[in-house]
Amino acid sequence: MTKAETRQDRFERGMQVLDEVDGEAGQRVIDSLAAISPELGHHVVAWGFGEVYSRQELSPRDRQLVTLGMLTALGGCEAQLDVHINAALNVGLTPVEIVEALLHSSVYCGFPKAVNATFVAKKVFGERGLLPVYGDER
Amino acid sequence: MTKAETRQDRFERGMQVLDEVDGEAGQRVIDSLAAISPELGHHVVAWGFGEVYSRQELSPRDRQLVTLGMLTALGGCEAQLDVHINAALNVGLTPVEIVEALLHSSVYCGFPKAVNATFVAKKVFGERGLLPVYGDER
Amino acid sequence: MTKAETRQDRFERGMQVLDEVDGEAGQRVIDSLAAISPELGHHVVAWGFGEVYSRQELSPRDRQLVTLGMLTALGGCEAQLDVHINAALNVGLTPVEIVEALLHSSVYCGFPKAVNATFVAKKVFGERGLLPVYGDER
Amino acid sequence: MTKAETRQDRFERGMQVLDEVDGEAGQRVIDSLAAISPELGHHVVAWGFGEVYSRQELSPRDRQLVTLGMLTALGGCEAQLDVHINAALNVGLTPVEIVEALLHSSVYCGFPKAVNATFVAKKVFGERGLLPVYGDER
Amino acid sequence: MTKAETRQDRFERGMQVLDEVDGEAGQRVIDSLAAISPELGHHVVAWGFGEVYSRQELSPRDRQLVTLGMLTALGGCEAQLDVHINAALNVGLTPVEIVEALLHSSVYCGFPKAVNATFVAKKVFGERGLLPVYGDER
Amino acid sequence: MTKAETRQDRFERGMQVLDEVDGEAGQRVIDSLAAISPELGHHVVAWGFGEVYSRQELSPRDRQLVTLGMLTALGGCEAQLDVHINAALNVGLTPVEIVEALLHSSVYCGFPKAVNATFVAKKVFGERGLLPVYGDER
Repeated sequence: MTKAETRQDRFERGMQVLDEVDGEAGQRVIDSLAAISPELGHHVVAWGFGEVYSRQELSPRDRQLVTLGMLTALGGCEAQLDVHINAALNVGLTPVEIVEALLHSSVYCGFPKAVNATFVAKKVFGERGLLPVYGDER
Repeated sequence: MTKAETRQDRFERGMQVLDEVDGEAGQRVIDSLAAISPELGHHVVAWGFGEVYSRQELSPRDRQLVTLGMLTALGGCEAQLDVHINAALNVGLTPVEIVEALLHSSVYCGFPKAVNATFVAKKVFGERGLLPVYGDER
Repeated sequence: MTKAETRQDRFERGMQVLDEVDGEAGQRVIDSLAAISPELGHHVVAWGFGEVYSRQELSPRDRQLVTLGMLTALGGCEAQLDVHINAALNVGLTPVEIVEALLHSSVYCGFPKAVNATFVAKKVFGERGLLPVYGDER
Repeated sequence: MTKAETRQDRFERGMQVLDEVDGEAGQRVIDSLAAISPELGHHVVAWGFGEVYSRQELSPRDRQLVTLGMLTALGGCEAQLDVHINAALNVGLTPVEIVEALLHSSVYCGFPKAVNATFVAKKVFGERGLLPVYGDER
Repeated sequence: MTKAETRQDRFERGMQVLDEVDGEAGQRVIDSLAAISPELGHHVVAWGFGEVYSRQELSPRDRQLVTLGMLTALGGCEAQLDVHINAALNVGLTPVEIVEALLHSSVYCGFPKAVNATFVAKKVFGERGLLPVYGDER
Repeated sequence: MTKAETRQDRFERGMQVLDEVDGEAGQRVIDSLAAISPELGHHVVAWGFGEVYSRQELSPRDRQLVTLGMLTALGGCEAQLDVHINAALNVGLTPVEIVEALLHSSVYCGFPKAVNATFVAKKVFGERGLLPVYGDER
């Protein structure tokens, strides 16, 4: 932690962490920001992933559970939920666990936000061939 | 309230309440959730409508006024506003009252959320042949 | 609506409306703002009450239902909920209806915000000798 | 799931789940609601704990991670964070993991909400003799 | 401030202020509201612009900085951010300053809301031929 | 930007920036976090101030305008508003400009959040002997 690093070193360290979570989606966000705010893209990677996400005190799977809760509660973050539901699958959460986390969110955030987040999960699971999570019987 | 009910009994009780409010839109939400989170659909109906909405302490019309206020304030709940502006019409609120409730919301939530909600009302009223609510003179 | 009014005329018109809702609490807010932002106090009265609240398209009772929904959903507005739960009682909502509106809010906003708002109602009802609303049997 | 239950059965089932998480804090909330909204207290227990929290699809520890994320993101839920940071400790999250989840939240919710939540954790940990979590060296 | 004005006087005063900021976008919002809530359109202009924005105590450029911060923090206000990023350019903020204000917002609101707002800026800057703001090198 | 820095170098760089804004309040926050989350305190300084606030693309005065807008809109951030209203004064915003920024916020966030923020300003101005900002005449 105490060795000297350049800005580029830290970006690269963040990219290594991001690659393990969801490198493709992360790269898309950075590319989309390149012409308008490369600095924002830099900090998402170098700070968010390189300095926070990389810490060993909480596992990647646990971080995604916290993140799903936050993005559902914030509202209006459907694009980020898309990225992080993919990431959640990549770090070992099962579709059943993700769906249950969003059901759980209805107790604390109410149904509208829980339903909005669940429809993002439906889109992501559909793209990855993971539907149906449950049979459609009630 | 004290008789024993199965899970299915409670769902059916909720569906009866939902049918009086907006059965078609409710059914669409439940159907959309069937392959991903039938449990969430179950709770929207069995708990939200069967156990809360069904209570006699507040009229359906009054519940929709509270709901319009909440959904406008939360933000990012345009899909739910669509359902509940339809429901508001179904339980007896007039277009003028709905528009006024959203104007009123600008005092407490600011103009951006009030305008967003009013545009959802415009869409719903247009679909139901209720436009113009006002002439366009100022 | 088309007669010419001075700024002071409009403030006085707003105060008349405010007096019917909760003049005492309103006056306290305006007094508290006098040394820092009299302009904000002016607009709460002249615009909020004089130009929006005063309109006939929605009854004062209905406006309070919308307002309770908004303030509960926004969060962090306990001081305003205090004022508006008093106002709600003043314009004819019963304690049972207010409590039910806040129970209803749990479906859309989740339990934490519903519980926070209900504790404000408990404080207001206690100050006005309206407790218990329900016996404490379950 | 299909056996018939009375309202009281479901409340008792919820209390059993709540007792394993944080029965004392839960009982305090229910007691505080008794004179104003016993129905809200009923639903927190019977629905929140009895029907959602009780499900096996997500472990209690995982549910608390999601909940910490939501309560931090919502803001203004310090009282609920107090209950759920206690609950998080009770179901096996370590102080280091809780602190890390709140640090993680700063990436998605910003520093103000992360700092507010961390100060609630400091209060809870202090009451339980768990401070310092870290030495105060930087 | 003390001369008598009609409702129409005040609307016209607001339109003059709005014209200096972004008359075209403002007119579009008012036109869109004409058939559903002309009163809301009136208040956006007559109150928002005529009575608040018009005050000399803060420059138009400074007002847009505050507004960018608010709209980013609220979330779900992409349509309003579009209008106000245009307005910000019109009153003298540079693309670099706008992008930096949104980067700054990530510290207080978190990355998701900062990224959402930055993508709105990218759209607006693209429409006005202002891209790239930065070269795409990192 | 490209020279190699240790973690401690970056913290010290951030402290220099923070000292120019509001070193005393910043130090209090870091001290309060020391026993629970020194890492969070580190990132507030090293990232928030050292890497974002320190950039030349936006002046400290402009950053505070954006920050006042965000903290008012988020709600529940009274402690942070206290720090940043002090900071705003320190970097050259006048009491009149700060009060006006908060009045302006009522248009976009509604009166409750604007009033809450204005009461924080009243507290800060009182502590610094800056009241009354306006005479109490209306």
